[in-house]
Amino acid sequence: MAQQSLFMDTDIVSPEIHSDNTVTFRYHAPKAIQVKVAGDFLQDYTADLVEGANGMWEYTTPQPLESELYNYHFIVDGLRVNDPNNAYVQRDIANLMNFFIIPGQRADNYAVKDVPHGTVSRLWYHSDVLGKDRRMAVYTPAGYEAGKGKYPVLYLLHGMGGDEEAWLCTGRASQILDNLIAAGKAKPMIVVMTNGNTLHTAAPGESGEGMYKPYSCGSFDTSFEAHFKDVLSFVDSHYRTVKSAAGRAVAGLSMGGFHSYWISLNYPKTFDYVGLFSAAIGVEGGPDGRRGGAERLAPEFYQNVDSKIERLFRNNPKLYYIAIGNTDFLYAQNKAYREKLDAMGCRYEYLETEGGHIWRNWRIYLEDFVQKIFR
Amino acid sequence: MAQQSLFMDTDIVSPEIHSDNTVTFRYHAPKAIQVKVAGDFLQDYTADLVEGANGMWEYTTPQPLESELYNYHFIVDGLRVNDPNNAYVQRDIANLMNFFIIPGQRADNYAVKDVPHGTVSRLWYHSDVLGKDRRMAVYTPAGYEAGKGKYPVLYLLHGMGGDEEAWLCTGRASQILDNLIAAGKAKPMIVVMTNGNTLHTAAPGESGEGMYKPYSCGSFDTSFEAHFKDVLSFVDSHYRTVKSAAGRAVAGLSMGGFHSYWISLNYPKTFDYVGLFSAAIGVEGGPDGRRGGAERLAPEFYQNVDSKIERLFRNNPKLYYIAIGNTDFLYAQNKAYREKLDAMGCRYEYLETEGGHIWRNWRIYLEDFVQKIFR
Repeated sequence: MAQQSLFMDTDIVSPEIHSDNTVTFRYHAPKAIQVKVAGDFLQDYTADLVEGANGMWEYTTPQPLESELYNYHFIVDGLRVNDPNNAYVQRDIANLMNFFIIPGQRADNYAVKDVPHGTVSRLWYHSDVLGKDRRMAVYTPAGYEAGKGKYPVLYLLHGMGGDEEAWLCTGRASQILDNLIAAGKAKPMIVVMTNGNTLHTAAPGESGEGMYKPYSCGSFDTSFEAHFKDVLSFVDSHYRTVKSAAGRAVAGLSMGGFHSYWISLNYPKTFDYVGLFSAAIGVEGGPDGRRGGAERLAPEFYQNVDSKIERLFRNNPKLYYIAIGNTDFLYAQNKAYREKLDAMGCRYEYLETEGGHIWRNWRIYLEDFVQKIFR
Repeated sequence: MAQQSLFMDTDIVSPEIHSDNTVTFRYHAPKAIQVKVAGDFLQDYTADLVEGANGMWEYTTPQPLESELYNYHFIVDGLRVNDPNNAYVQRDIANLMNFFIIPGQRADNYAVKDVPHGTVSRLWYHSDVLGKDRRMAVYTPAGYEAGKGKYPVLYLLHGMGGDEEAWLCTGRASQILDNLIAAGKAKPMIVVMTNGNTLHTAAPGESGEGMYKPYSCGSFDTSFEAHFKDVLSFVDSHYRTVKSAAGRAVAGLSMGGFHSYWISLNYPKTFDYVGLFSAAIGVEGGPDGRRGGAERLAPEFYQNVDSKIERLFRNNPKLYYIAIGNTDFLYAQNKAYREKLDAMGCRYEYLETEGGHIWRNWRIYLEDFVQKIFR
């Protein structure tokens, strides 16, 4: 009854998460000279596997791992390879990374639990501004389809090189929302995840461009903000939404923080909640030379920054949220922006975490932010 | 503005599909002794890459490739590795395989084109029979959400070791439906893709079991057929469906063909269209010893086969469709079943293709079958 597949099953278990939360990695390579595991759970980033019988290499963490979602890969005689016995990978831009979850504390909400689950849909909307159809992912909370009520909407934006899959795959957004909503810690909400690279219509493999290779740089030439009204009107006409600022939040990481910054400034009275996660935000309005597409379509978007900030905060947003890691390469510009807001007397919440410009932090920010909105 | 990701971008393009449909594969491995590419487009299954400057290995197909969706991986000094420059992979059971598409003819409908796109949702339903929530994937055709009409439903079932993601990922079901519907070659229809392994609730990583490792054997102990009424009633109550046999089809590959066989026999007058793709079907009712779970829950499901076949064909199903490859390991039992149907005077359509028990054939069968149903 076996599939006549190209590849056969193996009984190798890797990673094996033991009951004490130590983890064993295994890799079968009879001819290899050196096998390492590289992962974000290792102090020195890599560790050596030891060859046992029949070319089976193995490494067990000396200590239990703290609760977290970890990424790793192997390095075999100098070459990076994914773990062939762990088919479950996350894609970050163009890189596939193996992952595993140690639940219990921090990462408990990243795991799938036996709670009511929302629905995750991938669908297409038309942008009049861009003149094309584009793909988005939408999370609707458990009970939405069967019910009749109206729901608030979080617009959740990814970073450069990412796409409409990023928050779902690497960000574990649907698991975080399912678990927090089930625990009564977050209000049931719709989450809309757009594609922030307007040069593309959809994630690689899901667009007419085929399997294009995404890069972490080079796709900032967007007109994303200028076309955001098309997103808003599509969502408000296709879902049962609360159609007021009290029912709308916009948040994003890195480039998505840049987008959230400009969208919140340019759509006054539209969002009562704004989240800037490790935002690529310049005090004078974003990185120079990166705004070509947007500026061509709507140059007024990036003008009169200070008066737009004043206008936004005159409306008393219920939450203006800034979060960043203490070693993030964008730390200084976020600090300068906070000082500017302080000088202007604008109130915001601030969360500073350990570490840099990494998904581990963005999951923390999402989990924190969604508990504070629509209250 | 780069992400502080664990891994850096590279400019290596692999695979590179040239305008004449020859394809170049590249792999950077300065220390490797031998690099091969293994793929289903190669006559001998593997071919050697040649090392050029700076450890860049390369292979170009000597001939243009015919239009098809191809899978491949590299073999580096005897180890199987995926192409690190092609992040787009299909998972078949527990194996990740790189893929690329040569469009133009056969595989044209597997590519994303600039046509109206349906919506693909992952959602959860409750099974009273199994006493748990389970995950399914549902394709709704373009226009469904904005419209009010009722749509026919194809229940599309995967093989052993597969899950509710299989037909979407490796089967390219949403692309096939989008393209055929846009061309007027298939009727707009809803496609429901369930998880046929009732021991699990969802695909690996999407269930409370976490990253369990699926195997191609060993998960046939199901009660899938017995709980199918829960699927039918959920779909009919949550979607605008045509609630009659004329609006229902059931089809599946391998184990999903086994399921489709028994479901169609045990839900008389429910489906006017039945598709058995490389079906794991025994003349006497499926592989011995594999029906434990189903038999425990509903032993009557697997009794009185001949009278159930007679009953089904007395209802004159509009299409009873059998398809298989000429080297499929299930060819003999399908031949025996056809001979039995012939002897009983039961009419069916039959498609025989080249090759074995492989996704390449199942995509062909799906594309053929959906053009013949709901007419």
